[in-house]
Amino acid sequence: MAGSVSNGLAELGKRGLPEEAAAAAAEPLPEELEPEVAEGIREIVMGRNVHASCFAVKEPDADDEVTGEREATMAGVLARYRRCLIERTKHHLGYPYNLDFDYGALAQLQHFSINNLGDPFIESNYGVHSRQFEVGVLDWFARLWDLEKDEYWGYITNCGTEGNLHGILVGREVFPDGVLYASRESHYSVFKAARMYRMDCVKVETLVSGEIDCTDFGRKLFENKDKPAIINVNIGTTVKGAVDDLDLVIETLEKTGFQNRFYIHCDGALFGLMMPFVKLAPKVSFKKPIGSVSVSGHKFVGCPMPCGVQITRLKHINALASNVEYLASRDATIMGSRNGHAPIFLWYTLNRKGYRGFQKEVQKCLRNAHYLKDRLRNAGISAMLNELSSTVVFERPKDEEFVRRWQLACEGNISHVVVMPSVTINKLDSFLNELVEKRVTWYQEGICQSPCIAGDVGQHNCLCTMHKV
Amino acid sequence: MAGSVSNGLAELGKRGLPEEAAAAAAEPLPEELEPEVAEGIREIVMGRNVHASCFAVKEPDADDEVTGEREATMAGVLARYRRCLIERTKHHLGYPYNLDFDYGALAQLQHFSINNLGDPFIESNYGVHSRQFEVGVLDWFARLWDLEKDEYWGYITNCGTEGNLHGILVGREVFPDGVLYASRESHYSVFKAARMYRMDCVKVETLVSGEIDCTDFGRKLFENKDKPAIINVNIGTTVKGAVDDLDLVIETLEKTGFQNRFYIHCDGALFGLMMPFVKLAPKVSFKKPIGSVSVSGHKFVGCPMPCGVQITRLKHINALASNVEYLASRDATIMGSRNGHAPIFLWYTLNRKGYRGFQKEVQKCLRNAHYLKDRLRNAGISAMLNELSSTVVFERPKDEEFVRRWQLACEGNISHVVVMPSVTINKLDSFLNELVEKRVTWYQEGICQSPCIAGDVGQHNCLCTMHKV
Repeated sequence: MAGSVSNGLAELGKRGLPEEAAAAAAEPLPEELEPEVAEGIREIVMGRNVHASCFAVKEPDADDEVTGEREATMAGVLARYRRCLIERTKHHLGYPYNLDFDYGALAQLQHFSINNLGDPFIESNYGVHSRQFEVGVLDWFARLWDLEKDEYWGYITNCGTEGNLHGILVGREVFPDGVLYASRESHYSVFKAARMYRMDCVKVETLVSGEIDCTDFGRKLFENKDKPAIINVNIGTTVKGAVDDLDLVIETLEKTGFQNRFYIHCDGALFGLMMPFVKLAPKVSFKKPIGSVSVSGHKFVGCPMPCGVQITRLKHINALASNVEYLASRDATIMGSRNGHAPIFLWYTLNRKGYRGFQKEVQKCLRNAHYLKDRLRNAGISAMLNELSSTVVFERPKDEEFVRRWQLACEGNISHVVVMPSVTINKLDSFLNELVEKRVTWYQEGICQSPCIAGDVGQHNCLCTMHKV
Repeated sequence: MAGSVSNGLAELGKRGLPEEAAAAAAEPLPEELEPEVAEGIREIVMGRNVHASCFAVKEPDADDEVTGEREATMAGVLARYRRCLIERTKHHLGYPYNLDFDYGALAQLQHFSINNLGDPFIESNYGVHSRQFEVGVLDWFARLWDLEKDEYWGYITNCGTEGNLHGILVGREVFPDGVLYASRESHYSVFKAARMYRMDCVKVETLVSGEIDCTDFGRKLFENKDKPAIINVNIGTTVKGAVDDLDLVIETLEKTGFQNRFYIHCDGALFGLMMPFVKLAPKVSFKKPIGSVSVSGHKFVGCPMPCGVQITRLKHINALASNVEYLASRDATIMGSRNGHAPIFLWYTLNRKGYRGFQKEVQKCLRNAHYLKDRLRNAGISAMLNELSSTVVFERPKDEEFVRRWQLACEGNISHVVVMPSVTINKLDSFLNELVEKRVTWYQEGICQSPCIAGDVGQHNCLCTMHKV
């Protein structure tokens, strides 16, 4: 979900179907198929319902079945939409999604309404489910994070947000009067959870890298030392890809006197699956006193739709479950009905790639991220790359059209590219060449200077006129 | 989500892949593909992590890429799984899912990672989305429930539970100290919401039909008259398909002095889409003082994965949005990343069927539900069918194997069949014949009698020995 923080803002005044897509289309869209677009410049106003673009649903005519015209029209819309997706997929760099997958072997399953109702470990009477695959995937992740089969509980979620909502809820149920701590660079879903669950929430400062500042954390713990602590630890922040120092977080808790009075949820949306394959990286492991880990399935693994994996300690779920007596079964998920296709996609990729396959891909991503950072710096562009991370942060390109074309996620003066397996050197070269070329026109000597981003990435990473050595 | 209340219990001691499926398979499963099944009778124990059946993820061998053996093994698992799904789909009656759909035309889109990040009406920089389809679908539903384009807000959810979580959260934000009222036959997600959101929750009694008892509701409102009321109104309860009397609920609120101090969320998971097409049915409409309506997309419409539609008043979302300043954009959904395929499935079906198509299907379902009820009664089996409903409630079959085979949802002594467009007369006949035949062996004269279910369905619907006329 990286970059969601800048949702919309960069899209001011733009249309749903990008112009490139229209160009890619062999023939122009017939008028009745054009998305309904507001005239002139589109305004985003909080709380106004802007129908930027929309394929309206139209009532079939009485003779449609005979003429087949409706089917033909719909096929036309879909074919053009597909061309647009191809183009948009080709020029995508900003979000941490692996767009490179081939699930052709699973197309046969799209004819079924596959629903994993309720708990993965308790079967419902609905027979069209995929629990066999779900439990297989969960076992794999539990092993990855060092939790025994009979000591874990988990499920396949709809996305990283659901994982955070679940982890923090479990924490609250374990410590009903606990205070939630999270660094200010945590994903917005963490703060949303605090509000939904009516929890006291303390925002902790961050270092320039984006990691949680444990000095500030210790201070704030001390101020609230009468109440248990529930902590969201980021295994890869949204914007800078920073990994909070889990060991230092635990040490800070213990030093401040919080022995056994804390619950740690690890938001591993992206790096939760990459870190285990990075040499020398600190381990996310249930051998440490953590309560839950969540990771997204559509990010590093790649999946047609968002999904995620949630793993927690079984004993916590028992505490939760004992409170839901109105149910004859255990209801410990956030959602009731769950997408049964997602576990099969994950199962398929895990089986095909295995540990070795993921390791290779992680190494490639890190290599390519270094390549990107080095080339940016060599071109005189401020850039930062955290250790353990494939998220390259750099100055925000001046032209919003360029930002949109490459689907970069931006915040303030910075922007980022997340190097996923689908981001090849070729793609990076084409991006870099375009950026360098454009920059010449944006920053002409004496007219306009590239922005200083030392505040965001540190002086040593900033190449503005003031900080350039 | 009908019947989820009985999740698991009826499955005691059973395996993941039903025996029929094994029989359907041409060749037996090679041993290494057999789901890992615990020996003997499976025990469901709350809080024990039962690995009933599982397709384990296995690490590829080093030479797998050369031999292609792994691909072949996986293809085998999938082919057998598909046969199992066909069989399970054929014998399904208990859950309100329309299993009859053909989305072949959309198979081409499975290659794309389609994600509708955040708000449907504010574009993010991620270009591989389907907002054009989402807004088209939302417009259609807003019109169905009489809300103008510039007065509604909504989004495509992951399931009915997300709709209820959203509607009740909006209610709580509008009335932070409001008390949540819901009939005891409301879906379990309503009570889950109360707990998650730390709201006071009052359970209201129901009539035999399953509708909310407005006399009890009035009494309970009066007891809490100092606090605003947030009410969950059921447009089709989970078990009995009962439709709460929305007009009487509003009248009760006003009589008790709650003018303008209430928020009504309508849980229309199943019937929200059927009711508009039932002649003489009371209308769910935003012309009445309601705040939100949710409906499932995988139920009456039919969809490969769970999804739903949430429509609320824009003014409420503005109240919500003003509180989320940490976001540069509006974050008013429960989930952050959202399945971009679901809106396209819905758009496709709405376009193909239209109002007329749905009306025809609703009429067919109601006709078939009456057929089923009549045939049950003629066979001496206690049964109830609420007006406006296609959910036929009847005595719980004595044999759990039979319950499982037809995937019936059960609660206590009752069971139900939800007649969906995929439930044909042929399917019902085959079910009825089997039931009647089996019953002869279950209830032999003098040995064992069929249960009295008058408490659940009323004396006039009960055909036990005591109540039979």
